[in-house]
Amino acid sequence: MTILVAHGSSDQNWANTFVEMTTLARQSKTDTQLAYMELNEPSIQTIVNNAVKEGFNHFVILPLFLARGKHLKRDIPDILKNLESELGITTELLAPIGEHPEIAEAIKNILNKN
Amino acid sequence: MTILVAHGSSDQNWANTFVEMTTLARQSKTDTQLAYMELNEPSIQTIVNNAVKEGFNHFVILPLFLARGKHLKRDIPDILKNLESELGITTELLAPIGEHPEIAEAIKNILNKN
Repeated sequence: MTILVAHGSSDQNWANTFVEMTTLARQSKTDTQLAYMELNEPSIQTIVNNAVKEGFNHFVILPLFLARGKHLKRDIPDILKNLESELGITTELLAPIGEHPEIAEAIKNILNKN
Repeated sequence: MTILVAHGSSDQNWANTFVEMTTLARQSKTDTQLAYMELNEPSIQTIVNNAVKEGFNHFVILPLFLARGKHLKRDIPDILKNLESELGITTELLAPIGEHPEIAEAIKNILNKN
């Protein structure tokens, strides 16, 4: 299973952008779920716990963050380590999207259009 | 002139990702500068004030944000409105990168590789 992780916000409309990204991401990976670090639900833990009941045992996590702050450096690795030892699953934490060359390329393309 | 606007962070390494994005963005738009909303320098105001002295009078602003929070909804529009009336410049505020289809496409491509 693939889990996209967004920051979360108290703004009701903020999450819409990430829900749309997740819908499109399912064109690449059908079993893609969206989790939030704070202020929105579900959490990574909720998604993983439910998925394990359905038989999933490996999770690829792609943070929908542009750069590495506290959540990326500490919180997400800690959550994954705990879930691995509790549930016997394996996880792979990818670099935040902003560190993948595809995003810089996308920014160039946005600027070329405008 | 094109101004990319990032959030800013107290983490010393956080900005590196945005500096690299800006370097690559200059392949599309040579006159591209990077500004921050908080905790890093320079601000949008500093960049615009300096650029006006060099003869620039139109600015395209691309927020390096994935979704719209307070900075996007209120702070950036207010800053641009004030600069326009103070300096007689024109500005065009683009949607945050997360709302452009290029980013969702980039996420799909990142997932396809992993």
